[in-house]
Amino acid sequence: MDYTKVVGYQGLPGSYSEEALKGYFGENINTYNVSTFEEVFEALNEKKIDYGVLPIENSSTGGIKEVYDLLRKYGFYIVGERCIKVNHNLVAIKGTKLEDVKEVYSHSQAFEQSSDFLKEHPEWKLIPYKNTAISANFVKENGKRTKASIASKRAAKLYDLDIIKENINHNVHNYTRFIIIGRELEINKKFDKVSIVVSTLHKPGELFKVLKFFAEKNINLLKIESRPVLEKPWEYFFYIDFQGNLGEDYIKEAANLLEKSSSYYKLLGNYNQDK
Amino acid sequence: MDYTKVVGYQGLPGSYSEEALKGYFGENINTYNVSTFEEVFEALNEKKIDYGVLPIENSSTGGIKEVYDLLRKYGFYIVGERCIKVNHNLVAIKGTKLEDVKEVYSHSQAFEQSSDFLKEHPEWKLIPYKNTAISANFVKENGKRTKASIASKRAAKLYDLDIIKENINHNVHNYTRFIIIGRELEINKKFDKVSIVVSTLHKPGELFKVLKFFAEKNINLLKIESRPVLEKPWEYFFYIDFQGNLGEDYIKEAANLLEKSSSYYKLLGNYNQDK
Repeated sequence: MDYTKVVGYQGLPGSYSEEALKGYFGENINTYNVSTFEEVFEALNEKKIDYGVLPIENSSTGGIKEVYDLLRKYGFYIVGERCIKVNHNLVAIKGTKLEDVKEVYSHSQAFEQSSDFLKEHPEWKLIPYKNTAISANFVKENGKRTKASIASKRAAKLYDLDIIKENINHNVHNYTRFIIIGRELEINKKFDKVSIVVSTLHKPGELFKVLKFFAEKNINLLKIESRPVLEKPWEYFFYIDFQGNLGEDYIKEAANLLEKSSSYYKLLGNYNQDK
Repeated sequence: MDYTKVVGYQGLPGSYSEEALKGYFGENINTYNVSTFEEVFEALNEKKIDYGVLPIENSSTGGIKEVYDLLRKYGFYIVGERCIKVNHNLVAIKGTKLEDVKEVYSHSQAFEQSSDFLKEHPEWKLIPYKNTAISANFVKENGKRTKASIASKRAAKLYDLDIIKENINHNVHNYTRFIIIGRELEINKKFDKVSIVVSTLHKPGELFKVLKFFAEKNINLLKIESRPVLEKPWEYFFYIDFQGNLGEDYIKEAANLLEKSSSYYKLLGNYNQDK
């Protein structure tokens, strides 16, 4: 690992993004944190950072559409991925009891992933924050026992908060997949996952034609996410992930055929699937 | 139209859901409003209403995942759809000027769809509400000039609010598609759109096998939306919309083949596409 590199993420130390970043690049990498997803793309564009780490999908709540849209808007490449098990906890300043809590601060996705637990406390006011670690930091700095945050155990430790209730996410198989983005396409014979985005004409069989290539070559489709084409209501960009290496002839051929049969095509990257 | 029927929606009079409901069922239909999407499903389950109207997709911001998940959870049928052009406006009590505004209340999707306009006013505090009409009603009842809402012109008129800035959505082609749900599958030879949800095994070509039937029969795929399978990280339910009538043999055959090749299959409905 090259420790002269700087890697950007959204949030604060203690966020799941930072955990994914450290998991992928190691504990000693230089980090650069910003407050929105788009600022990670901007920092990469302005060469303030060499790579960025962004959440793309959660196994309970689905794709993170803003990141999908930004990937297409900025035209950078996916160079890697990292999956993190996400266990949410209700955290507050030392000595806080469950009955003290009146307001809960966190990311809206953390609210969704903990909705069964939150339904037991309909009197709580839920205030959405841009990031779980930012909400944990706010609760610490505010210093009141009426305010709690939903965040990771790492964040609780870092901001010196008590865990009032642990593992409040209702789905125990709660994972978030993060992508690593860079300015250049990276090539390596060992990479086993390809991501592309295509748009097809709105007529019978067009979407099928795109997918036919994969079946004919026995390529495993891992994921399809659709996002609207802004100027054209009810037309879509399809973000497709599949297994393969761009150095292999049949993968190259499938990618070429795909490009020819789409009205829009962009290779998003070839990288190692995190298993 | 049978005017003894009662139709439920989320929000208040003046909401886009109510507009879609009136557009589909006529001005004189009996309505029943609730405060969450799930309460529409519950009311249908408890036979408090005969039909429900719910937003399923916006042409700028994409699918409304909560409604997709509830459709599968409750097992009701789609019996119709209605598309509504959505133009957002900044509204506040009579006499309010743009420079008076300090806080803006609306649905988070309305914030997203008006984000270019909102970026011109970074000092405004944005407070998410469950529905645009509920936020307009709140601004009216609160009575302060510092509070504005993003809502429809209908809502402004209904709650006697001034339009401070009209058409603040950045995408002029901003439509929301609503579905009409009922307890029973409805059959009619004129219906031209079918919706199903399937889940496939996670191995090469499985998703393709599902889609192959459509291409072979020259059936037009209108939309694919993927949602996570909660217990199985990185497996998906695919919500597929296609053109056709279930009374036609080749559509019946495609649906049968689809059922056989999927690990999960549910027919969501056959209804008229709103064009």
